[in-house]
Amino acid sequence: MNAIEKFEERTKKNFHICVGLDSDIKKIPQHLTSSDDPIYNFNRAIIDATYKHAAAYKINLAFYEKDGTRGIELLHRTLEYLPKDILIIGDAKRGDIGNTSKMYAQALFEHFNFDASTLSPYMGYDSITPFLEYKDKLNFILALTSNPGSNDFEKLDLGTGKKLYQKVIEKVSDWNEFNNCGIVFGATNLEELKNNIKSFAQLKVLLPGVGAQGGDLESIVRIFKEENNQNFIINVSRSLIYADDSVKFTNTVQKVIMQYNSIVNDVFNS
Amino acid sequence: MNAIEKFEERTKKNFHICVGLDSDIKKIPQHLTSSDDPIYNFNRAIIDATYKHAAAYKINLAFYEKDGTRGIELLHRTLEYLPKDILIIGDAKRGDIGNTSKMYAQALFEHFNFDASTLSPYMGYDSITPFLEYKDKLNFILALTSNPGSNDFEKLDLGTGKKLYQKVIEKVSDWNEFNNCGIVFGATNLEELKNNIKSFAQLKVLLPGVGAQGGDLESIVRIFKEENNQNFIINVSRSLIYADDSVKFTNTVQKVIMQYNSIVNDVFNS
Repeated sequence: MNAIEKFEERTKKNFHICVGLDSDIKKIPQHLTSSDDPIYNFNRAIIDATYKHAAAYKINLAFYEKDGTRGIELLHRTLEYLPKDILIIGDAKRGDIGNTSKMYAQALFEHFNFDASTLSPYMGYDSITPFLEYKDKLNFILALTSNPGSNDFEKLDLGTGKKLYQKVIEKVSDWNEFNNCGIVFGATNLEELKNNIKSFAQLKVLLPGVGAQGGDLESIVRIFKEENNQNFIINVSRSLIYADDSVKFTNTVQKVIMQYNSIVNDVFNS
Repeated sequence: MNAIEKFEERTKKNFHICVGLDSDIKKIPQHLTSSDDPIYNFNRAIIDATYKHAAAYKINLAFYEKDGTRGIELLHRTLEYLPKDILIIGDAKRGDIGNTSKMYAQALFEHFNFDASTLSPYMGYDSITPFLEYKDKLNFILALTSNPGSNDFEKLDLGTGKKLYQKVIEKVSDWNEFNNCGIVFGATNLEELKNNIKSFAQLKVLLPGVGAQGGDLESIVRIFKEENNQNFIINVSRSLIYADDSVKFTNTVQKVIMQYNSIVNDVFNS
């Protein structure tokens, strides 16, 4: 299965929760920190608890890069452990001039063999195209993010009533020749989601910001349902993977993702 | 010496050429490729040939990340070899939500101990501030880049006659509380440099795009000279480090950087 098939297989079955493996030694259950390989053990436990219920996994590279070679090696082992029939997103928000973006694409798609990337659009098309040339991979390009800083530039008016993030969505739609483009749309921006969803009906959507960042799952799913759009995954990191710090944390994590799935299903069945 | 002192010490002595260590096994001199440790040997040779003549070194992380742990380990050894009294820029164009950017800052400034970063502004202030909290480091935030894609968003008009990159410069100036902010301004944008240089007199400037990308060294330096501004470094990668692929390549590389320095000095002394 290629990335697009992996995405579609699960989302069509109403699995829309992407598990963010933002694994942080300071936040994982206490009892694991004394083990030999705490983050790897934590990741394995989270993967085992969520695999049947998840739409995708998202690994934010910052959490691994901060430890240099040791972190990269841990990332490798985590990727090896992850099942191969579910979408794995390398969340790195890369973007550089063409010949350099080519190397970043090589890093994510060849070296690590991620199914999907996240990309920053600031530098324009030639920073993105080296990724799009991998036709069996998926690329989520930042449009409107979930953080407070999204007001600084993303929501700037371009004078025509159109905002920068809307221009990004327009361009990403132009770049979608191989059907391997998506956008990142922060789950904290409900009004904007409602007002723009028709403009990206052809694009896959990754929505971060539910949980710790305040986005509301049910409201988001309702907006997609009204458009008859299944083309989305909602990332949950902290509020899921750190839901419990007891020795039985995997039970809780599994319950939480199943609760998320029922919320999603209830909306789609309502 | 902290990063700001390193930057100022060399630029005040009219050293303005930043050596881009974009080391690529496909481009280094043939005779090195059969050695045990080709890229490391190449980097050492380039560093030895340029150290007395350079203003800074810029390492683009993509060139190392593409080889995973092996690349990161090579990056570490290159950083160890680099002298400690010259500015070392970790060119990674990072940017993510606050708690994640904090990890990227940790990776660049603590784990690798770079003096400076490059950052993408798209996600706004909270993607940048975790870097600015390191008061003895420098941060070059992308304003106007040297690549063709800069037309897609960076040069978009905001309706007021102001363009997105100009808004970025404005914001970066606001964020410069600790005097540790700079901007990236592509050397291929001469007209824009001329028309905007007064707006960033307080910011340090990193200009990529001279050489392979077509930027003209002399014209750039002239613009800075007219403003009596020494606050800039000009990055040269491919046209310097791959100037010669013979066994005597270090001689040529040294000659080329010295020629660049004479061009700079001729302008300042004219």
